[in-house]
Amino acid sequence: MAWLINQQYFRDKLQFGPGGETGAVNEMVRHTFERTGANILGKRMFDQGEVSWPEEAPFHTPVYVLTHEKREPWVRPGGTTFYFINEGPERALELARAAAGERDIRISGGADVIQQYLTLNLIDELEIALAPVLFGAGRRLFENLGETASQFRIDSVLNGTHATHLRYVRA
Amino acid sequence: MAWLINQQYFRDKLQFGPGGETGAVNEMVRHTFERTGANILGKRMFDQGEVSWPEEAPFHTPVYVLTHEKREPWVRPGGTTFYFINEGPERALELARAAAGERDIRISGGADVIQQYLTLNLIDELEIALAPVLFGAGRRLFENLGETASQFRIDSVLNGTHATHLRYVRA
Repeated sequence: MAWLINQQYFRDKLQFGPGGETGAVNEMVRHTFERTGANILGKRMFDQGEVSWPEEAPFHTPVYVLTHEKREPWVRPGGTTFYFINEGPERALELARAAAGERDIRISGGADVIQQYLTLNLIDELEIALAPVLFGAGRRLFENLGETASQFRIDSVLNGTHATHLRYVRA
Repeated sequence: MAWLINQQYFRDKLQFGPGGETGAVNEMVRHTFERTGANILGKRMFDQGEVSWPEEAPFHTPVYVLTHEKREPWVRPGGTTFYFINEGPERALELARAAAGERDIRISGGADVIQQYLTLNLIDELEIALAPVLFGAGRRLFENLGETASQFRIDSVLNGTHATHLRYVRA
């Protein structure tokens, strides 16, 4: 994640202090954040964030968390409210669409949730930051896909120092 | 593999006829072939090639095939001779080094063989053609790695229409 933490826009959003890169990768991050009107998260990613995000969580939109847990909405300062959705990914998307208006919906992860939406054939664009780090273990992004998953084509590629930013769109 | 079959240099090498792209990707393919003095292959990849390569196999170097099968060298027209090595990846590399002279050794695949050399910490460079094709099944390049596997950094990235050409070097 070093590439992201070094971007000026992201540092500003998370109140990490001044400085940071201001080039094409920073503009890509800004564009992604600004066009997002609602976010969808998996429970595992939410659990990690709940203990590590700053008070002002870095979404500034409604966030729909896919979970079996029943919980009242959690309102954070700065425009982020987490809603806990027990009725599955299509219901979360429906709520996110209504909230996002003209803006886009970002499925922020983790891998499980992205795989569910890929299999449902509901993903129009994939933005992937690819870094050459061999973990040797862990969850893979593109597994557990049903045969209904869409195919994609390359839309654009941005070459960063520490990551390659792949933008794929539905073919 | 569409990206490769469309390159002028590759078409010429495999006697696929005239035409093909002549840009930066073509130059990358030429550079990779020209600097290679010996190839190493796995048995599974060899078996596939044995029934599909043209008479003049597309290596034009000695090729060391890792296998448990005992077999005499197989000489093809155009400078390709296949040697069948039963003594493991380090012995194959030793023979390839002696044959390659000042040129480089290419581990052409498949995934199993690349993983063995990664785990042995013997790979200096990775050249990966990444295409957005979701197979949903199959062998993965970066799995079964031992903890001794090296880490890599981005050296260069070349953006093709159908594939992104990542060149990583040992960090």
